[in-house]
Amino acid sequence: MSTPLPPFPKRQEPSDEPVLTELTAPGDVPQLRADAARNRARLLEAAARLVEEHGVANVTMEAVAVAASVGKGTVFRRFGDRTGLLMALLDHTEQRFQADFISGPPPLGPGASPAERLHAFGCRAVRQTSERLDLYLAAEPDASRRFSSAPYRVRFMHVCMLLRQVRPAADIELVAQTLMGYLEPALIHHLTRQRDMPLERLESGWHDLVDRSIRPPSA
Amino acid sequence: MSTPLPPFPKRQEPSDEPVLTELTAPGDVPQLRADAARNRARLLEAAARLVEEHGVANVTMEAVAVAASVGKGTVFRRFGDRTGLLMALLDHTEQRFQADFISGPPPLGPGASPAERLHAFGCRAVRQTSERLDLYLAAEPDASRRFSSAPYRVRFMHVCMLLRQVRPAADIELVAQTLMGYLEPALIHHLTRQRDMPLERLESGWHDLVDRSIRPPSA
Repeated sequence: MSTPLPPFPKRQEPSDEPVLTELTAPGDVPQLRADAARNRARLLEAAARLVEEHGVANVTMEAVAVAASVGKGTVFRRFGDRTGLLMALLDHTEQRFQADFISGPPPLGPGASPAERLHAFGCRAVRQTSERLDLYLAAEPDASRRFSSAPYRVRFMHVCMLLRQVRPAADIELVAQTLMGYLEPALIHHLTRQRDMPLERLESGWHDLVDRSIRPPSA
Repeated sequence: MSTPLPPFPKRQEPSDEPVLTELTAPGDVPQLRADAARNRARLLEAAARLVEEHGVANVTMEAVAVAASVGKGTVFRRFGDRTGLLMALLDHTEQRFQADFISGPPPLGPGASPAERLHAFGCRAVRQTSERLDLYLAAEPDASRRFSSAPYRVRFMHVCMLLRQVRPAADIELVAQTLMGYLEPALIHHLTRQRDMPLERLESGWHDLVDRSIRPPSA
């Protein structure tokens, strides 16, 4: 139970755009970096809209360039290829989620009780995964890397942190994996698309699971 | 909660070996069918030994033929290709498990209480998956079919049946999916190979999860 967790995998961030930097006097770099970050965010927002409107299968580098009114070369320089774009898009979505559960307002963020935060965490995860289901499924790593991908680890560590506060004597890692299993994109896909369950039912199931997971052990 | 489950997917069984049947007078067919079934079982046992000894990556049609002392053509006629062989091997393993939890001795089979059977079910699944982990991982369907594969459905329906007896007011399908998630080969791979957990710890975690899942709701 005291085995340390494996080292946190490094997040692969695309490097800053070299073409822009080379053409710039040193004093201008901060301004251009901010421009590049804004540019990147704009491309990702355009890609996210395309995913929502047309599904992930129809999102190409060219479509993103057109939607964001930039040249196709800019999209390739920024993300490398389509897989890089999809991973960056998922990362973008997850980073907003992470910011919210780490430092956003309660009940998801600090200020609410650990139990309230756990309840809110799953409901947000269910909704977010359901909204971008195609993207989550397309980016799902294979079985041997599913539990070591950076987005998974960040969520997992957060659930562990909350569980530790509310049920310190538990086998935190196993309970956290059980909770995470309920939020797997493949399961949410099955329940909402193949079994036609409304999200409210998935949320009720999450509340029941959290309540049971944090109760003291039976006598 | 009352939505009917989707139709049970048809199990794909290889047809009986046509070459043998064609050469046979009608009266001899039952004997030859029995021979063919024995032959098939012998090939699968040989393949299972190879998986255990050398890992699934090293199991070829030729190696199975050599290990079972038959011609390579027999292995191809029986299973089509290597994927067919691996699926048949997993099916063989799962069928023994199914026979045990449906009609074997207690506590896994009938005669024990539903709670006892649930406890025994997970422990057997953890051990069996761990013993043939490579095979379970190699045969894992992609995300969109993970919950509709025949072996998954048989296990899932069994867990639903037991839960219904012990906690009839629950959202059986969601609780069953949570329990099934704990037994996912990808998770067992992560916990035992990447996190080096002993099987006893996974079993304890299962007992805790089952106890919590079947308790009456908190006041």
